[in-house]
Amino acid sequence: MSQTGQNTLQRRLHTIIFEAETPAGKTFDILILMLILASIVVVSLESVVEIRRKYLPILQGLEWAFTGLFTIEYLLRIVSTRKPLRYIFSFFGIIDLLAIIPTYLSLFILGSQYLLVIRVFRLLRIARVFKLTRFVTEGQVLSRALGASLTKISVFLGVVLMTVVVVGALMYVIEGKASGFSNIPISIYWAIVTLTTVGFGDITPVTPLGQFLASCLMIMGYGIIAVPTGIVSVELARADRLDANTRLCPNCHKEGHSTGANFCDNCGYRLRPEEREV
Amino acid sequence: MSQTGQNTLQRRLHTIIFEAETPAGKTFDILILMLILASIVVVSLESVVEIRRKYLPILQGLEWAFTGLFTIEYLLRIVSTRKPLRYIFSFFGIIDLLAIIPTYLSLFILGSQYLLVIRVFRLLRIARVFKLTRFVTEGQVLSRALGASLTKISVFLGVVLMTVVVVGALMYVIEGKASGFSNIPISIYWAIVTLTTVGFGDITPVTPLGQFLASCLMIMGYGIIAVPTGIVSVELARADRLDANTRLCPNCHKEGHSTGANFCDNCGYRLRPEEREV
Amino acid sequence: MSQTGQNTLQRRLHTIIFEAETPAGKTFDILILMLILASIVVVSLESVVEIRRKYLPILQGLEWAFTGLFTIEYLLRIVSTRKPLRYIFSFFGIIDLLAIIPTYLSLFILGSQYLLVIRVFRLLRIARVFKLTRFVTEGQVLSRALGASLTKISVFLGVVLMTVVVVGALMYVIEGKASGFSNIPISIYWAIVTLTTVGFGDITPVTPLGQFLASCLMIMGYGIIAVPTGIVSVELARADRLDANTRLCPNCHKEGHSTGANFCDNCGYRLRPEEREV
Amino acid sequence: MSQTGQNTLQRRLHTIIFEAETPAGKTFDILILMLILASIVVVSLESVVEIRRKYLPILQGLEWAFTGLFTIEYLLRIVSTRKPLRYIFSFFGIIDLLAIIPTYLSLFILGSQYLLVIRVFRLLRIARVFKLTRFVTEGQVLSRALGASLTKISVFLGVVLMTVVVVGALMYVIEGKASGFSNIPISIYWAIVTLTTVGFGDITPVTPLGQFLASCLMIMGYGIIAVPTGIVSVELARADRLDANTRLCPNCHKEGHSTGANFCDNCGYRLRPEEREV
Repeated sequence: MSQTGQNTLQRRLHTIIFEAETPAGKTFDILILMLILASIVVVSLESVVEIRRKYLPILQGLEWAFTGLFTIEYLLRIVSTRKPLRYIFSFFGIIDLLAIIPTYLSLFILGSQYLLVIRVFRLLRIARVFKLTRFVTEGQVLSRALGASLTKISVFLGVVLMTVVVVGALMYVIEGKASGFSNIPISIYWAIVTLTTVGFGDITPVTPLGQFLASCLMIMGYGIIAVPTGIVSVELARADRLDANTRLCPNCHKEGHSTGANFCDNCGYRLRPEEREV
Repeated sequence: MSQTGQNTLQRRLHTIIFEAETPAGKTFDILILMLILASIVVVSLESVVEIRRKYLPILQGLEWAFTGLFTIEYLLRIVSTRKPLRYIFSFFGIIDLLAIIPTYLSLFILGSQYLLVIRVFRLLRIARVFKLTRFVTEGQVLSRALGASLTKISVFLGVVLMTVVVVGALMYVIEGKASGFSNIPISIYWAIVTLTTVGFGDITPVTPLGQFLASCLMIMGYGIIAVPTGIVSVELARADRLDANTRLCPNCHKEGHSTGANFCDNCGYRLRPEEREV
Repeated sequence: MSQTGQNTLQRRLHTIIFEAETPAGKTFDILILMLILASIVVVSLESVVEIRRKYLPILQGLEWAFTGLFTIEYLLRIVSTRKPLRYIFSFFGIIDLLAIIPTYLSLFILGSQYLLVIRVFRLLRIARVFKLTRFVTEGQVLSRALGASLTKISVFLGVVLMTVVVVGALMYVIEGKASGFSNIPISIYWAIVTLTTVGFGDITPVTPLGQFLASCLMIMGYGIIAVPTGIVSVELARADRLDANTRLCPNCHKEGHSTGANFCDNCGYRLRPEEREV
Repeated sequence: MSQTGQNTLQRRLHTIIFEAETPAGKTFDILILMLILASIVVVSLESVVEIRRKYLPILQGLEWAFTGLFTIEYLLRIVSTRKPLRYIFSFFGIIDLLAIIPTYLSLFILGSQYLLVIRVFRLLRIARVFKLTRFVTEGQVLSRALGASLTKISVFLGVVLMTVVVVGALMYVIEGKASGFSNIPISIYWAIVTLTTVGFGDITPVTPLGQFLASCLMIMGYGIIAVPTGIVSVELARADRLDANTRLCPNCHKEGHSTGANFCDNCGYRLRPEEREV
């Protein structure tokens, strides 16, 4: 096979596997998505005792079939791209690899096949398949807002972690082993369960002092949830403002026109009718 | 009966049943609302063993009476409207039908009469009866805001669902069957219970590693509730802003100019510099 | 006693009891506040079996003493005001009465003395005693914001209530009596426990379908908490804006100066240096 | 040793211990941070029965070693600063002392060594070590915003506390001792658990009336979380706005002019129309 022929084949494979513009590419992507969903259902069903007892051979057969297909897909992805290393070490490249390893590992380590559920992250590609660029954009707005609030949220989390360590140790001293606070790590776990308002109830204070401290922790947890919420709200509002305000009037230089404005609302100058879909 | 006489009757029925302007129409609507509430109470009471044992005949009699009345009402609604099909397939038309079917179904399928509680949705008509247009408007503001944030919320929910699937499978592998994580679907259910900070406590981790992973999931759930909250806050604030800017352009009739605008941002027409109170 | 003498006495009593400006009035108010707190502690302690067994006579003696004092105070309030009826039917007048009735009632109905805790609402007067006008103002801002969002919150609560009724009935049909969903009212109670993310865990679904429906309800409850939060945020932000923006520049009529501004930030005109403490 | 020599030594010690600019100072700080983390891990492990049984001598040895080092550090801090009293009574001075006392106390009071976890607060110094001034700034923004909302939050907490007291007493009267509401203090504890949506489930209502009241409390708790969230959001948004408006008036040095201001709103001086990026 000549160099050119190889290139043509590679290019065609690339179009089918990595792009979703052509009918072939789109069909391929939808097929893969359905295989992923099916394989997750199979793995989940395999874990149910009643079903495994009856259908284990079928389920295992399906599992190997899915893994075989995903392995072929993974290899095709490597050969069809021009920069295989870049793909292999990209986010999706690593996910694609992690999504096939557990089946092979299950030959040696029992139960490791359940880690196959990591395949669920391959579904993130769904956005590309259905040209859900809007979703991607919104996702980026969200993650940018979260990123911008990262410092504030770290400070918040730091304070929360210190609180649960101290309250956990105090509860261990106050409650003792009788009521389930059998050591400091488990008391810290309880403090997290309580502060986050989850409240399993597997461990609960029984002494009046312990219940008083627990009450303080609960009211604190109930109140400070306002902090991350406020942080994210402000960041999202800012992202929102920036989004709407990026057009400058070329005549009077006023910023902050509302989305979809055709004319400057300050001087009446016609704004460039550029394409905008928000 | 002549065509005209029929039309007159139909029009009168329509006024009584579909409108709430006339005294007769309003009385009819309030009567129906009270019947709906009464029938829900009856169905609920019927499910309480102690009450059913004593009063079953009375309760069943009432249930059939209510259903009979609602059936007649449904038929009258069909005959009194000019476009019966449009009513039948409208939101309220379907609800009205679903609200009578279960009683007839209970002749064949035991226990299906409890589905009658769907009647509760008929109460949505309450807004019209009491001319609570303000409620309707506010409801529309809310649902518009939620609609506008739908894409962002979908992205958020997608990430949440992927997280609970992966954490559920991990917990199944880590905790095993001893502590209630008996299969992957039930572990995913546990992950949802935990991430949403509900925390029933019917299933709880007992291994240190499981408790550590659960702690991470809880802190994540506690933190990311900020995301939908922030999204909705921003959308409501925007809806609120738009709501305040209902100045209409006299030229192109565009609404929703930004505060302090001198010119219509759609057609460039000079807006009347009227007094504004924000 | 002459009419004038009576009036003087009445005026003096009024100053002491209803006002907190004079030293005597302030001492009286602080005394009453301490008596309220002490009486609540006494009632709470009386309910603890171990304490009641030992100290019942003392506690009951204290309770009657407190009630006697509060009764005298109530009567004095009536005679010292010029418009007794207005006081009796005011918010605090009713609270003051309700705060003494249970003790007398406990002679006839056992256990009714515990209702004395309603005295806690008398503490609302604390704001006046310490001249906490700032707290009163902030409280008014909060309640105004909540009031303004009342319509939106009613719509929200209406939808929530309809949801829990329907989900409760569905869970009753799906789960049956085996797992604690023994009738529709109790299933509705469970739905409220779940939707509000409280999650006691006294009743939990055990069937796969029930767990699936519960998961949906939990995710819904987790997500829609964003709605009231967003509503209140927007209203508070608006109240905040109004608070800051109520000064108009007399020269250029620009509104919305920042709090504490001495000059118009648009034209440089000196704003009236009126007193403002926010 | 001459006065000068002593001063030189003191200054060098000060540089190493209190500053993080020099390599020696940074090394010292990182060392201390690692010692703190290690000592917390040791204390936590000591509380786990299985580990204590095996490694108690080692763990106790480590604990005394850490305490010895921290004691030396504390003394060095005192001698190396020029104003020892100011350090001793500063926030970090008190924390540093509290972080060594429990070990010595454990000679007399069994179990008090677990209070060593207070060392976790020494980690707050981490910000200085890594020059995380950004974190410090963000932390200040957060605490300023919380401080500004303190009055509103106090009003909110006051109402919440009154509610739990009254609901707690009502539940005690309604439910009685059979279902765990054995006295008023424990019923108040339950009301806090429920209102904050923690919901341990160790105590749950069983009577219909109790479940109804609990439902109301839950819906209230679910709804009013919006209040602190809204308050903090608004304050953070305001802090954010002020933060963005850090243009300094060249005349009176006032900061925090509103966006788009042409004149200083404090002294009326014309601000330079400099380019702004928001």
